[in-house]
Amino acid sequence: MLQTAAALPLTAAATKMALAETPGASAAPAKPGPAKDVTRTLAHYLVTASYDDLPSNVRKEGVRTLLNWVGVAIGGSHHQTVDIAVAALSPFSGPAQASLFGRRERFDIMNAAFINGVSSHIFDYDDTHLKTIIHPAGPVASAILALSEMQPVSGKEFLNALVLGVETECRIGNAVYPDHYDVGWHITGTAGVFGSAAAIGKLLKLNEQQMVWALGLAASQPVGLRESFGSMNKSFNPGRAASSGIFAAMLASKNFTSSDSMIEAKRGWANTISTKQDYNEILGDLGKRYEAALNTYKPFACGIVMHPAIDAAIQLRNENKLTADQIERVDLKVHPLVLELTGKKTPREGLEGKFSIYHAVAVALVEGAGGEKQFSDRAVNDPTIVALRGKVIPVITPGIDPAQVDLTIVLKDGRQLHRTIEHAIGSVEMPMTDQQLETKFSDLAEGIIPAPAIRRVMDACWNVESLPSAAEIAKMSVSA
Amino acid sequence: MLQTAAALPLTAAATKMALAETPGASAAPAKPGPAKDVTRTLAHYLVTASYDDLPSNVRKEGVRTLLNWVGVAIGGSHHQTVDIAVAALSPFSGPAQASLFGRRERFDIMNAAFINGVSSHIFDYDDTHLKTIIHPAGPVASAILALSEMQPVSGKEFLNALVLGVETECRIGNAVYPDHYDVGWHITGTAGVFGSAAAIGKLLKLNEQQMVWALGLAASQPVGLRESFGSMNKSFNPGRAASSGIFAAMLASKNFTSSDSMIEAKRGWANTISTKQDYNEILGDLGKRYEAALNTYKPFACGIVMHPAIDAAIQLRNENKLTADQIERVDLKVHPLVLELTGKKTPREGLEGKFSIYHAVAVALVEGAGGEKQFSDRAVNDPTIVALRGKVIPVITPGIDPAQVDLTIVLKDGRQLHRTIEHAIGSVEMPMTDQQLETKFSDLAEGIIPAPAIRRVMDACWNVESLPSAAEIAKMSVSA
Repeated sequence: MLQTAAALPLTAAATKMALAETPGASAAPAKPGPAKDVTRTLAHYLVTASYDDLPSNVRKEGVRTLLNWVGVAIGGSHHQTVDIAVAALSPFSGPAQASLFGRRERFDIMNAAFINGVSSHIFDYDDTHLKTIIHPAGPVASAILALSEMQPVSGKEFLNALVLGVETECRIGNAVYPDHYDVGWHITGTAGVFGSAAAIGKLLKLNEQQMVWALGLAASQPVGLRESFGSMNKSFNPGRAASSGIFAAMLASKNFTSSDSMIEAKRGWANTISTKQDYNEILGDLGKRYEAALNTYKPFACGIVMHPAIDAAIQLRNENKLTADQIERVDLKVHPLVLELTGKKTPREGLEGKFSIYHAVAVALVEGAGGEKQFSDRAVNDPTIVALRGKVIPVITPGIDPAQVDLTIVLKDGRQLHRTIEHAIGSVEMPMTDQQLETKFSDLAEGIIPAPAIRRVMDACWNVESLPSAAEIAKMSVSA
Repeated sequence: MLQTAAALPLTAAATKMALAETPGASAAPAKPGPAKDVTRTLAHYLVTASYDDLPSNVRKEGVRTLLNWVGVAIGGSHHQTVDIAVAALSPFSGPAQASLFGRRERFDIMNAAFINGVSSHIFDYDDTHLKTIIHPAGPVASAILALSEMQPVSGKEFLNALVLGVETECRIGNAVYPDHYDVGWHITGTAGVFGSAAAIGKLLKLNEQQMVWALGLAASQPVGLRESFGSMNKSFNPGRAASSGIFAAMLASKNFTSSDSMIEAKRGWANTISTKQDYNEILGDLGKRYEAALNTYKPFACGIVMHPAIDAAIQLRNENKLTADQIERVDLKVHPLVLELTGKKTPREGLEGKFSIYHAVAVALVEGAGGEKQFSDRAVNDPTIVALRGKVIPVITPGIDPAQVDLTIVLKDGRQLHRTIEHAIGSVEMPMTDQQLETKFSDLAEGIIPAPAIRRVMDACWNVESLPSAAEIAKMSVSA
């Protein structure tokens, strides 16, 4: 095999006359880079790591990742964004291999993975790896749930692939974060395609060389720019990462080749796409330290900058059985980002409510929740909530961290109720309980899949490790 | 519509707690960037530009681009790379909407465009926009030839879309070249996806807003890293650019939204993917200056650094009716890049021959050509050629440009034959003639499609503007 030409220190001007016009390679030997065998070492780990190697806390978090993802995928499944994707792609879908969560159509696995990935991110209510802001499940779960309907995949194999996919994307994300994110990449899509390729590659039982190529073809397809935030294109990104990862792994499974060092080479992924490259984040303590164990789930369907305030409001409401008519005023001490990002005083649509700390606190006090229903057109126009939001007074206060809030409710009877939040529910420090994940799931799935199915799907997720076929989860999650 | 949050100057650390966890947007107004309305202005041009606007030289070059592309797509169609892609993707293909050039299978248009795009780049023998080293036809022609089999597309519409697609990718490439290429991106894939989306969007008759979104979804899917050069992954890139561009345009046609300024926004494509952004390259003289008129075609199936020497050798051979046994020695004065990139003295396989100036000159003298057949396993092991390549003596010479060569053949009878090449055949200055393009086409297609079909396909390409349906070209180009 010829050395790849990319290791040569040629400028575009020089290569214009030569390199790029040459089919692939030069005869000059590649110079050793600062990092060696990153792609291959990762591939070796992926093809050898087994379910039995997973520590119990990692298995448990993988199961929670799965349950949370299925809930948000069902929840988003009838959004206009999904309707459009289904209509646009129907004419091109292959055989009806895989389910669309919360719907009745079936698509080939690549198109199904795309649509399910879109669906799961629509409310921005999916899981978060807080170190990188990657939403890990979207690219991975979308892909392997689809594949599970096409070939036999046991529950244990499934969970192992899910963890390995999440591990791959989060570690690769760590290696380039924050520079890569700061410059403009939507890291869920750029790292996510590796997660999908790794997990699918695992289920396809790729050998080490094929896994190297799968990662290389994944590296060739980064997805997503932050500029698209606020449009349907944001949800596009995890979906396309899922389907492009499958595309990469399927080609690699037939020995479609790539470079052996696409992640770490001089003109490979990390150097091209980021000014920071820390390969120890990818390879350090593989099989010992698990990023997948650090996954978090949102209790509230909005940016986490508002979560401490919503958490405090719900706690005081429930403890004191508050009603809106008792409340004179709500004082919040907040970090500047809260007003910078969520300072909208008079939201008129549900989506705008997600950018209004005034609405978020008011609806939390009135309804005791912060789910998707609390950020609906109905909620932001509810007269009681509209009246109360006018009484919410956020004040930027030095010393308050973005993860914190200091909230005081002044009641009409003169009492003051006070709560300080250091870590909101849903953070690594204060994880959602399994019961809270179930409540979130039920709220999202209600009215979309039949009520008995909601219980069955949740049980199937909790018990995924004992399922003979992981396909059951998708098959149960469709609408009637 | 809320302003997108991406315009805010937030670091990852700040956004970690807020922005990216927020569904899409912030309430703060976007700051105006240095460039305005690049995406929208380009989209406006694309949706309004008509066939009648095209100058005749641009039409002519578009036709030559088409003919050359069809030839290389047929020529590569039975390479192992294509066999693998066909095998890997068959289980997922949608309806049999489009032909594979040079083959018998039919795939849905996205998968067909991918495979045809791969096929057309395998020999690295496709067209080249020399200012950017983009191979323009791969992403665009692959896409619109497939679409032409799915919906009625007249030859004039087709040619207009081809030119607009090429124009789009080359202009966007110009805006970021060379920085974008130097850092490691395979510009054919990263710019190519815009070309495909623009051309498909034109044929789908997108309105301006939809075209803006199509370009935005294209921007979200850059394809290809230079590290993959030397593997099948290089050919993957134009193919995936073609299919991802279709994917973008199809979604946009159903109003799947993106940002309105994905090319030029602070965290949009150009700023994220390049340290250079020259938007005048994209918008300057739209409809007046045509990059599509600058396309070039390779007469020889190897890197252009060897083209001047091959050109000189063939000229002297033909003028003097030389045979190998007459030749004592061949002296070449060359630029250093020639030996750096093509210094392999004893190639053993056809692909290695592409990196051997010794072989290239010898085979050109013996066979009077430099096509794919001259870089086959057969050719590099031909005893006459092997003997002659030992008599080829390249010498690095100051003052010789990479586009030049100074070649002297010393004959056994004492005569010396000398030729200096300033611009090799196939350059902008010395374009291949239509007849030479036909010879190249015939050599590539011979043995793959029936002999009478070769003539019919070439005629259909030359006469594309008068075809009632551009689908004829693909339908004629399949194997028997």
